[in-house]
Amino acid sequence: MQKERGMTKKAKKTILITGGNGFTGRHACRYFAGQGFHVISVVRSAGIENHDIQTEICELTNAEETSKLIQRVKPEYILHLAGQSNAGESWSQPISYMESNVMATLFLLEAIRIHAPSCKVVITGSILQYPLKESILPPHPYSLSKTLQIFASKSWANYFDLNIVIAKPTNLIGPGPSTGVCSILAKRVAEFEKTGKNDVLTNMDLQAKRVFLDVRDAIRAYHQLFLIGGQGKEYDVSFGTEATVGEAASILSSLAAVKFFVPEGVHEEKLSSLTRTGSKEFNCTSTIPLEQSLADTLDYFRNL
Amino acid sequence: MQKERGMTKKAKKTILITGGNGFTGRHACRYFAGQGFHVISVVRSAGIENHDIQTEICELTNAEETSKLIQRVKPEYILHLAGQSNAGESWSQPISYMESNVMATLFLLEAIRIHAPSCKVVITGSILQYPLKESILPPHPYSLSKTLQIFASKSWANYFDLNIVIAKPTNLIGPGPSTGVCSILAKRVAEFEKTGKNDVLTNMDLQAKRVFLDVRDAIRAYHQLFLIGGQGKEYDVSFGTEATVGEAASILSSLAAVKFFVPEGVHEEKLSSLTRTGSKEFNCTSTIPLEQSLADTLDYFRNL
Repeated sequence: MQKERGMTKKAKKTILITGGNGFTGRHACRYFAGQGFHVISVVRSAGIENHDIQTEICELTNAEETSKLIQRVKPEYILHLAGQSNAGESWSQPISYMESNVMATLFLLEAIRIHAPSCKVVITGSILQYPLKESILPPHPYSLSKTLQIFASKSWANYFDLNIVIAKPTNLIGPGPSTGVCSILAKRVAEFEKTGKNDVLTNMDLQAKRVFLDVRDAIRAYHQLFLIGGQGKEYDVSFGTEATVGEAASILSSLAAVKFFVPEGVHEEKLSSLTRTGSKEFNCTSTIPLEQSLADTLDYFRNL
Repeated sequence: MQKERGMTKKAKKTILITGGNGFTGRHACRYFAGQGFHVISVVRSAGIENHDIQTEICELTNAEETSKLIQRVKPEYILHLAGQSNAGESWSQPISYMESNVMATLFLLEAIRIHAPSCKVVITGSILQYPLKESILPPHPYSLSKTLQIFASKSWANYFDLNIVIAKPTNLIGPGPSTGVCSILAKRVAEFEKTGKNDVLTNMDLQAKRVFLDVRDAIRAYHQLFLIGGQGKEYDVSFGTEATVGEAASILSSLAAVKFFVPEGVHEEKLSSLTRTGSKEFNCTSTIPLEQSLADTLDYFRNL
């Protein structure tokens, strides 16, 4: 029998992490393995397995494949990160977003209901999911898919007495294959450094405010939700640093080995729904300052 | 070229009626054919084609089949009645309800967006769909599926500028293969007449109030919605007769050729969300009194 740190493998709790090869997924696999869990990463297709982590290939939009996986693994915990998350792309593939974000989640919950009913599940919603109101429709198909995903998941928790907790993360940043605003900026800075080309950094809206949270801090929060999260309850994971895109760009500028132009004009604006809404019910604090997150992100693109 | 009443077939507007062999669907096919439409009934499988009506077999939970159907037919109107509607059954088949009611509807709307973007669609929600509120979850998976179906359909209308109208019918009654409360009672009365067996009619809750609307009146309302319904708007089709189940039972008793026991005790109760909520925006009135609906329903079961 395989022994690890004096524990038999069986004694370890099994956590299944869907989207295990994604931006958050890679960090999550590493973190939970470090915390002594038996981690199984679930990825969509062969060739993107996680290094050093047991990987299962499963197309979660296929109910039967998903059911067989859960029946076989019977995990104690599931961190459900898989899904599609590009609002722009959702306009041209709205059905795919509904299948990946809504139905795949329900296939997973249904598999749990049947094969692992005491499993604790943390589902990551999105700060772009909308409050459900008759009069307000979500602004794009991605937002619709996240809104319905979370509403249906809470309903499932209620109907079938399942241990489902919802995490609503804000803008997660940090090293890795993210397509978020900080990664776009850091990637461009790394290009400047390589090519020596001195250009305008970005034509993004530098005054847009965000709550930036390091992905590694978010994962600590998800871990806490496995321990204290209430059934069917929703938790904002938005305890990061409030800053404008311009402020993030300025920090990256100060870290860069080359000089480049960051447009001026960082004004106060009315905070949008993207900013933090408070999370009194559980207490997580940011341990990684914005500067460190950005430095790590820049290093990631430098070494890519 | 086939001629009908002096019109070429092409000059007729084509209406596609999904769930064409269901309780409402059969009446709808007959009604719209009578109104001069070219009616195409869509049914799930072979062997349940409508008599005298062009029928297409299509599994609407299959996106590709649905897309091909719409591409080929390019209807001017669609009355979307297909779906699953048994709240009890939805507890054991929740995924099937989500697929039939939510995803099949979106596959249909997506096919329309691509192949027939000017098509006008009336989607029938349900009086059991719920107002979307964070704090209130629908009471069962059927209700969840109808709630999400309508919310997603309105979103689709908005995102893609599609001519989608939502009808929210109350309890529809009348002759045909319904599993509603009046049909259950009428079927039992017809059995009493055949067997001569004199028993208690029902142990249903006779004090439960409903708004009963004849299915044929509801279809006239759907027709009106094709003409005046606003894009993405929702209309209550609940202008029927408010009565208790006990009152319906008493009417059936008076129509029956045999005597049987209808328990007493029809009390006033606080009206539930099942009762009418008003529909100021369009004016339909009931043309078929409750007594006539019940007589026709009883005749249907007598002649089955």
